[in-house]
Amino acid sequence: MENFSVTILGSSSASPTTRRNTSSQLVNFYHRLYLIDCGEGTQMQLRRNHFKLSKINHIFISHLHGDHFFGLIGLVSSLNLFGRHKNLHIYADPRIQEILEVQLNFSETVLRFKIIYHPLNFENKELIFEDKKLEVYSYPLDHRIPTCGFIFQEKPFLPNIKKQVIKKYSPDIHQINEIRQGNDLFLKDGTHIKNKDLVIPPPAHRSYAYCSDTKFFEKLPDHLRGVELLYAECTFMNQLQQAANDKFHMTTNDVSTLAKEAKVKKLIVGHFSARYKDMTEIQEELLSLFPDAILVNDNETFHVRESL
Amino acid sequence: MENFSVTILGSSSASPTTRRNTSSQLVNFYHRLYLIDCGEGTQMQLRRNHFKLSKINHIFISHLHGDHFFGLIGLVSSLNLFGRHKNLHIYADPRIQEILEVQLNFSETVLRFKIIYHPLNFENKELIFEDKKLEVYSYPLDHRIPTCGFIFQEKPFLPNIKKQVIKKYSPDIHQINEIRQGNDLFLKDGTHIKNKDLVIPPPAHRSYAYCSDTKFFEKLPDHLRGVELLYAECTFMNQLQQAANDKFHMTTNDVSTLAKEAKVKKLIVGHFSARYKDMTEIQEELLSLFPDAILVNDNETFHVRESL
Repeated sequence: MENFSVTILGSSSASPTTRRNTSSQLVNFYHRLYLIDCGEGTQMQLRRNHFKLSKINHIFISHLHGDHFFGLIGLVSSLNLFGRHKNLHIYADPRIQEILEVQLNFSETVLRFKIIYHPLNFENKELIFEDKKLEVYSYPLDHRIPTCGFIFQEKPFLPNIKKQVIKKYSPDIHQINEIRQGNDLFLKDGTHIKNKDLVIPPPAHRSYAYCSDTKFFEKLPDHLRGVELLYAECTFMNQLQQAANDKFHMTTNDVSTLAKEAKVKKLIVGHFSARYKDMTEIQEELLSLFPDAILVNDNETFHVRESL
Repeated sequence: MENFSVTILGSSSASPTTRRNTSSQLVNFYHRLYLIDCGEGTQMQLRRNHFKLSKINHIFISHLHGDHFFGLIGLVSSLNLFGRHKNLHIYADPRIQEILEVQLNFSETVLRFKIIYHPLNFENKELIFEDKKLEVYSYPLDHRIPTCGFIFQEKPFLPNIKKQVIKKYSPDIHQINEIRQGNDLFLKDGTHIKNKDLVIPPPAHRSYAYCSDTKFFEKLPDHLRGVELLYAECTFMNQLQQAANDKFHMTTNDVSTLAKEAKVKKLIVGHFSARYKDMTEIQEELLSLFPDAILVNDNETFHVRESL
């Protein structure tokens, strides 16, 4: 199940450090690439991780704090220089358009491709992208300015037909499709076999959620209920809970409460304050609260599910 | 004479590559830091080279092509996050203000320091900065959009007094200052010694010029006459002279003609097209035309004069 992963391109909050770039991630879903946030240097990070810039068609920007979008204009410019013609979809606060256009206008750059702007809904959870296998939802966060998180949710797998059913009844392709869609099997001799006796249940569909930047709020776990892999911002340690509240960020305590209440399977955290040079303490504090959590580093890749 | 140097932070044109960032340089003049251009990732490059961001008070932006300014908003934001209060001087096309402000406004960022915008003169050479030891000039280039180069020129040294003069006449501090300013020495006994017999001429004052982006044009060498160290853009090899003309860039031939006609002492070149992965050919071509030229790499430092 290595066809659904996320690569961390930046995991510092606010300002880059010598070891961490500002926020950006690349979701790889069956080799289709989706970019979440685009801090300064994201195009260099994509190159460093051997992702083809031209394969990115959808970019999701959580909010208009610079550490989440300052790299977007550079990426857009490079795509243009490399001869892109395909549409580029940007899901963001609609004011991102003015930010890009003022810079393109003053440099007298005419894009050879079209940017399709999809304004985010900062009030309610919303399906913002869908194809045959994947759905992407935005959901509102509670930050100083309008902010959304994103959920990448695999569409449910169809059930597989039991081997002995194939062997015994040799269903044709039409029948196989019908069965997998949930229908019973009717044979020519009048035999009727119920669907539940024909199929084995499919593996649970996978989901990845990006939750940054936000403070903890009561409804937040509802949005993330049952997510398989959650990336959440963990800007501060508990000692700075007041600063976290004031700045609308989360602490180790907030993030572990969120992960527990939402019953997520795996938790990875990032968006660390630059004050934490040595990550030992924040790691120990987080693990004492949520034992399986992982503090991410730039250029690490996490698979939503290692194997079935 | 290692108190006047330039560190290359980015030497790629248009788009960053895995080995080169887009244009930016740091001029270090007696530990005062001046930033020229600010491509994406400049703040990370400054950090990598152990320059204190807070020590930069003057930023010179040659023109509004993205590879020369996309990193400015990130640098300004980080300066603000780090608690800067001192004024920051930006010498640029005045439209840079709108580019910065639209991004600061949408992120609801209020700077704690003031940016003083100095609009560049794209028609004539102009003194744009001056202190006790240094003058900085802008001069017009010929690029697709309004563009200036910059010349950092040390103010002339005062001559030193000959050792035997000190020994023989023991001039007091007042007399020493008078002599160094060019005056003759009048002794109480009526002796009159001419200035030229009192002093040894000072070392020539040093100068560094940044010349990017531009095509070659007839008046260009006049602006750069006698510069000691010249950094010039050398985007293409000679084979692409037509592309260079069309895109308002220089080739190895243009840049060596410029260096010869301007009689510069040392030539370093950068702003290479990303098409040149292996620099051997461009280097050979350039050296055949101007033997002492150096092709720069990111993170290299060049002293305007190694020793007196």
